[in-house]
Amino acid sequence: MPEVSMRVRKADAAFAPVADFYFRSRYADRRFAPGIADFTFGNPHEMPLPGLVGALHAAGVPQDKNWFAYKTSEDEPRAFLAEHVGRELGLAFDPEDFALTAGAFAAIALAFELLLDAGDEAIISDPAWFCYEPMLLASNCSARHVSLTRPRFDLDLDAIDAAITPRTRVVIVNTPHNPTGRIYDRTTLEALAALLDRASARIGRRIFLLSDEPYRRLRFDGRGFVSPAAVYPWTLISYSYGKILLAPGQRLGYLAFSPLMPIAERKPLRDATFPAQMALGWTFASAIMQRAIPDVETLSIDQDALRRRRDRLMTVLSEGGYDPLLPEGTFYLFARWPSDDPAAWLNRLADHDVFVMPGAILGSPGHFRISLTASDAMVEKALPAFSAVSAALGAR
Amino acid sequence: MPEVSMRVRKADAAFAPVADFYFRSRYADRRFAPGIADFTFGNPHEMPLPGLVGALHAAGVPQDKNWFAYKTSEDEPRAFLAEHVGRELGLAFDPEDFALTAGAFAAIALAFELLLDAGDEAIISDPAWFCYEPMLLASNCSARHVSLTRPRFDLDLDAIDAAITPRTRVVIVNTPHNPTGRIYDRTTLEALAALLDRASARIGRRIFLLSDEPYRRLRFDGRGFVSPAAVYPWTLISYSYGKILLAPGQRLGYLAFSPLMPIAERKPLRDATFPAQMALGWTFASAIMQRAIPDVETLSIDQDALRRRRDRLMTVLSEGGYDPLLPEGTFYLFARWPSDDPAAWLNRLADHDVFVMPGAILGSPGHFRISLTASDAMVEKALPAFSAVSAALGAR
Repeated sequence: MPEVSMRVRKADAAFAPVADFYFRSRYADRRFAPGIADFTFGNPHEMPLPGLVGALHAAGVPQDKNWFAYKTSEDEPRAFLAEHVGRELGLAFDPEDFALTAGAFAAIALAFELLLDAGDEAIISDPAWFCYEPMLLASNCSARHVSLTRPRFDLDLDAIDAAITPRTRVVIVNTPHNPTGRIYDRTTLEALAALLDRASARIGRRIFLLSDEPYRRLRFDGRGFVSPAAVYPWTLISYSYGKILLAPGQRLGYLAFSPLMPIAERKPLRDATFPAQMALGWTFASAIMQRAIPDVETLSIDQDALRRRRDRLMTVLSEGGYDPLLPEGTFYLFARWPSDDPAAWLNRLADHDVFVMPGAILGSPGHFRISLTASDAMVEKALPAFSAVSAALGAR
Repeated sequence: MPEVSMRVRKADAAFAPVADFYFRSRYADRRFAPGIADFTFGNPHEMPLPGLVGALHAAGVPQDKNWFAYKTSEDEPRAFLAEHVGRELGLAFDPEDFALTAGAFAAIALAFELLLDAGDEAIISDPAWFCYEPMLLASNCSARHVSLTRPRFDLDLDAIDAAITPRTRVVIVNTPHNPTGRIYDRTTLEALAALLDRASARIGRRIFLLSDEPYRRLRFDGRGFVSPAAVYPWTLISYSYGKILLAPGQRLGYLAFSPLMPIAERKPLRDATFPAQMALGWTFASAIMQRAIPDVETLSIDQDALRRRRDRLMTVLSEGGYDPLLPEGTFYLFARWPSDDPAAWLNRLADHDVFVMPGAILGSPGHFRISLTASDAMVEKALPAFSAVSAALGAR
């Protein structure tokens, strides 16, 4: 396809495993079939939150002539977020530390555009979300991959340190972590911060941390959360309302700068968000979504239901030899194929109309991911299937 | 600002004239003041269309569990657009020829990403919209500027031909044209198509045409419209609903591929829109806006009011020596300062609380642009001011 730019071809190639699964797989053939147990993507399997519908309706009733005029990062939602997110994370944000974006994708693209030039590198810890790398490639940049440590998928600080080159500009940390559900603790983040400080001095250029936190408010068992932005001053936070509202089609998120970042460095970055978002395609959140922020701020999908599904699945997957890792946050559960042939297990589960996300897509072929946004009925259908497949193929 | 990437710094620098005007000018000081006559940007000065409000409300009431799930370019709006835009432009589109975007900015960014790699060039005819060049620069590409021919601002085909280099990948045509209101006729477009065919052969690489048509349905005096996509097969159309609805804060548009483009070249481009939009920041139109398309398709701001304002202003500006060009489309009117000191005229008009867009921002310092989206009251306030300033400073 010589018509298509090299950078998009590279992004497309990096995304190929996801596209193959979504468009050319047994899942692809069945994904619209009623009655399947669909644990693949974090999509809604129940009706939208009534509070969300009400908030969208209210925000769509114009109160003045500028209601649907061009929006950038508007003053009111910025001030609201500075106060509310500031309280949540224990950080004294300025309103100007927030750039309102049409979802977290746009916030991540903005971070890359603000910080990276052609040839620059970002470090990704695998398993990882499958869009970071295509986004970097489409931006003429590249990814360096390191592995999270098994079996608990902690950050491998030595590996990150070793992966840093003179072109390293960003280290990506996703917490709570998709797909493992891990939440990194303060001690780990402090060690990472110290490492990045030393490495920045070593390469003579500041290395930034992108803290991708779209699952920040989805946590189990009363667990706390420490944002890397509270530990390492050169941190940018990407956030999406798409997860906690389970409404990713409405595109609302933000990029926030840690208020610990010295103002001499933070202000040029803040000032650059406008031209950067304009140039990316005017990626500001829509008028309605910016207006809706105060109303949706306290809404959440049913987190008790997520926990209930998690616990049911943990028990059955453990018994079946799938060695699941207890997620601390997110709405995912990460487990391992009991033997070395992922395709066989995926096929057997598909025979039962049970579909999970292959770990190969996430950079960990021996594992699979379950999305707990599946309905209770899907969970009940799947539990005997996981047991039956394990009995048929044999756990270790 | 060493923290900010070079590409964003370049985009920011190219955008500086607009930012200076918007944030640091007499207009900046007064733009929220009640009672000013604001002819600067194409912003609404009246309440939103009731039909738009109703459409947004209806589209926000979920009918199924996937209502607010991730949206890409959805089948229903694509099929709708293929039929309706196909009829409008006389082109037999496939549904897959449409990529649904969050506004025309995102469609233009998508076109650049699909077609241009680092170092590639696009040709822009000045005066021109002030965002093309920053968008190119943020994408590690560059712009070559040619001038439209005075006094009628026709395309200068010889100048375009001379500006083509081996790195030329796109020629941008904006019709109806912002800021001049010109609509290019078929003869001109056919000559451009022949030129681009010859030049593509000469450089050994296909040169594409980006037809930026957000004002396509805003035409005066029953004028027709020929899309370059109907004349040159290698044309991509960017479109926005933000102009005809005067609701740019809701972000709805598309990129469309001319169905005349050979399928062997068109299909790879179509297939690449998904990874390209994902990588730009998931720039698909929101769930609500995609649902609203059939309801908003036939809505328009009051075009009779635009014509009435145009005609009132044309008369007074002509009498004042501002040499206005009768716009054939858009909601702009382009006129010329009667003497060689734009700052003096801008200042005198500002003394009357009348604000227009300086032509310098658009690449034509001797001119100025008036947005006809100003209210009738603004027009009535401004007419004597234009006359008075002309009397004071003296027409040629």
